Amino acid sequence: MNVLLTFSLIGIIGVSEAGIISPSTWALLVAGSRGWGNYRHQADVCHAYQILIKHGVNPDRIIVMMYDDVANNRLNPRKGQLINKPDGPDVYKGVKIDYREEDVNVKNFKNILLGNKGALKGIGTGRVLESGPKDDVFINFVDHGATGLLAFPSESLYANDFIAILKEMKNKQRFSKMVLYIEACESGSMFDNLLGHHDNILVSTAAAPDESSYAWYCETWKTCLGDLYSIAWMNRMDKLNFSESLFEQFDAVRTEVLSKSHVNLYGDYRLGFTQFGNLGSENDFVSAAEDEYDQKDSGVSSRDVPLYFAQQQLKMATSDLPQKKNELETIIKGRDFADSLISNILEDFTNGNADLRMDLEYKRYRLNKGMFGCYKSVISSFESNCYKVTKHTYFLKHLYKFANICVKGYDENEVRRSVEKICNQQSSKFELIV
Amino acid sequence: MNVLLTFSLIGIIGVSEAGIISPSTWALLVAGSRGWGNYRHQADVCHAYQILIKHGVNPDRIIVMMYDDVANNRLNPRKGQLINKPDGPDVYKGVKIDYREEDVNVKNFKNILLGNKGALKGIGTGRVLESGPKDDVFINFVDHGATGLLAFPSESLYANDFIAILKEMKNKQRFSKMVLYIEACESGSMFDNLLGHHDNILVSTAAAPDESSYAWYCETWKTCLGDLYSIAWMNRMDKLNFSESLFEQFDAVRTEVLSKSHVNLYGDYRLGFTQFGNLGSENDFVSAAEDEYDQKDSGVSSRDVPLYFAQQQLKMATSDLPQKKNELETIIKGRDFADSLISNILEDFTNGNADLRMDLEYKRYRLNKGMFGCYKSVISSFESNCYKVTKHTYFLKHLYKFANICVKGYDENEVRRSVEKICNQQSSKFELIV
Repeated sequence: MNVLLTFSLIGIIGVSEAGIISPSTWALLVAGSRGWGNYRHQADVCHAYQILIKHGVNPDRIIVMMYDDVANNRLNPRKGQLINKPDGPDVYKGVKIDYREEDVNVKNFKNILLGNKGALKGIGTGRVLESGPKDDVFINFVDHGATGLLAFPSESLYANDFIAILKEMKNKQRFSKMVLYIEACESGSMFDNLLGHHDNILVSTAAAPDESSYAWYCETWKTCLGDLYSIAWMNRMDKLNFSESLFEQFDAVRTEVLSKSHVNLYGDYRLGFTQFGNLGSENDFVSAAEDEYDQKDSGVSSRDVPLYFAQQQLKMATSDLPQKKNELETIIKGRDFADSLISNILEDFTNGNADLRMDLEYKRYRLNKGMFGCYKSVISSFESNCYKVTKHTYFLKHLYKFANICVKGYDENEVRRSVEKICNQQSSKFELIV
Repeated sequence: MNVLLTFSLIGIIGVSEAGIISPSTWALLVAGSRGWGNYRHQADVCHAYQILIKHGVNPDRIIVMMYDDVANNRLNPRKGQLINKPDGPDVYKGVKIDYREEDVNVKNFKNILLGNKGALKGIGTGRVLESGPKDDVFINFVDHGATGLLAFPSESLYANDFIAILKEMKNKQRFSKMVLYIEACESGSMFDNLLGHHDNILVSTAAAPDESSYAWYCETWKTCLGDLYSIAWMNRMDKLNFSESLFEQFDAVRTEVLSKSHVNLYGDYRLGFTQFGNLGSENDFVSAAEDEYDQKDSGVSSRDVPLYFAQQQLKMATSDLPQKKNELETIIKGRDFADSLISNILEDFTNGNADLRMDLEYKRYRLNKGMFGCYKSVISSFESNCYKVTKHTYFLKHLYKFANICVKGYDENEVRRSVEKICNQQSSKFELIV
């Protein structure tokens, strides 16, 4: 059910003119991935940290969750540093990380937002958001995603649970205004048809519910240095010497990113007129041409990054050709097997009903809060019997098909039976996906 | 140049609570196409007319431009009527058409909006928008589109000219608030990076700048009865017994349409809180499930409608198989030739520069006001030497490549030379496109 209430003009008048990013803001920055191949997520989050500091946010009010396995990774040519663009400045410097490695998880994420200090005792720095009804909150989450979920290193945060946390924060008066910037594939599906219009929460997502987000700056090293949406808003923040409203930034970032994905806003649009930063607003002219740095790159769909680098390795190789070729073939075979696994599950489940099969494959039914019980149960079965989707992120692109089954109201046990059956049948081939 | 000004809260407070669609509203409804194959555009516009009447708009304040060659078309099974969904009510009934056939053109469109009665003397009913500074204006345009242009029956309206008209209306105080609903392929490209944020003009587009919009209800007759975005907002208006704000409607329609295209808002977001209709606002619950009528259909990309029907004809044929096969092959050959023509022009223009070629083919540079002189000149050359793009609408999907050339600042004469050369070389094959 989607409650549609009309906006009260009193509510609009009540929005203050202070920037969302200001000294009193509480912020939670999360890079949800791990590994050298996901360098870009931690670089994005560190860059966001630097921007908050530049805008005067008190570092005591910034909480950072990141695996922290990249800056000092043996593959890092600039050991101990992270850059978010080619030859860029070190954005890792000065970042205070509160929760590392497996402490980057959904339970801690929730406890930080709800201020449950007790629950975090002995974990990381134990710091939490201590925001009250007069404070603004900014959340920046960067990682892989899929229909109705965001990936953490070893588990998923589902949309209904995320929205329940936000609601609880609202009920406990833990913020005046809250703004979320979410970089993930299909990130719109976390909020579309799910988030209310009048909770003083505004979300900007890198991608619409049905599409990938894009990795950027993939030519310098054997990993990408940033994600397009993230660098679009952050490079803009770096460049402007005045603050713009959330709507103005949205418009500019949407234009910047549109050749790859469709940036969207969700939630309480009254917040759109609030300044984003804390540099004072000015009337100024910004030439569109100035922003075209990104158009020189071509980007890589987040989900194709491993494939892309294997292809590049082979293309550039002057030695070890058979090995590089083998690496590429391994990735391709793994993807093919992943595709066939999902195909087989759907085939078994639809049992010859071709129309239903097409429906599940090619449509994207809108999510609703009632479908998540089934959805989690099916994914949980897939993870127990086949693969962890947060580890083998290629599977994320297929999950909307399970979501379709659940939205259409099928019995989750029937789907689980198909999942278990096919996973067991195919388990001898599991090593195809490394 | 894009002027970014911050929003004034006084401006927000100043927005009145009256619905955009109310008795005093002035409206211009335009179906920009002709022919049985484009039935859906005229049906959409007639449906919009009925909605305005339902919401109390004075018919003397509604101006309609449509070719009017569909309701009484010999192919129409419900002669003298138009329906906007299978077995739907006649939406043509009672619609007063002001400008028909070739009077549906850009010059008249402009004169209507600017209230130039003299210029329209003796043309159609000669009626114009007589709106003043206290009146709201609603424009609904439905037709084919391409990067930076909307198609009229025999010519194109370019984005810079459209925005200049809107600016002139603003300067002449011809409206208090203006809302535009635009159904066309790539309709976002008419406004993205081009429309200002503070002119009391809010635009909703069926599609982002880089994508098709979708025809719907294509299974009943040998033409489609509506377009997805249009029927999404209008079926919603038909169903709700209260009015919602423009933002609320946007959210619902975006969700409805998202499996096909990405609905976007542009312009002055302050208007988003205004009620759209005139039925009074209520707190109410709307079940998401109720809106899922559209998900039963699968839709056809606007640009593939002729191909789709030729395929259907062949599939369903019990007689005349060779003829039907021939018709399908003719369409496919025509499309192939169109693709190769554009390819050859780009090949000639880029003259072996493979990077540039890729750039022009695969990127979509954002438009700016300065590029339209070049863009119009190139399209004009293409229309003189090859085909009219408003007649042979398949070409519309390629025009962004010409736009790319112009945004990148190449000499328009060089492009024109390539266009003329290739068109002349290939002219013996022109009959391939019928």
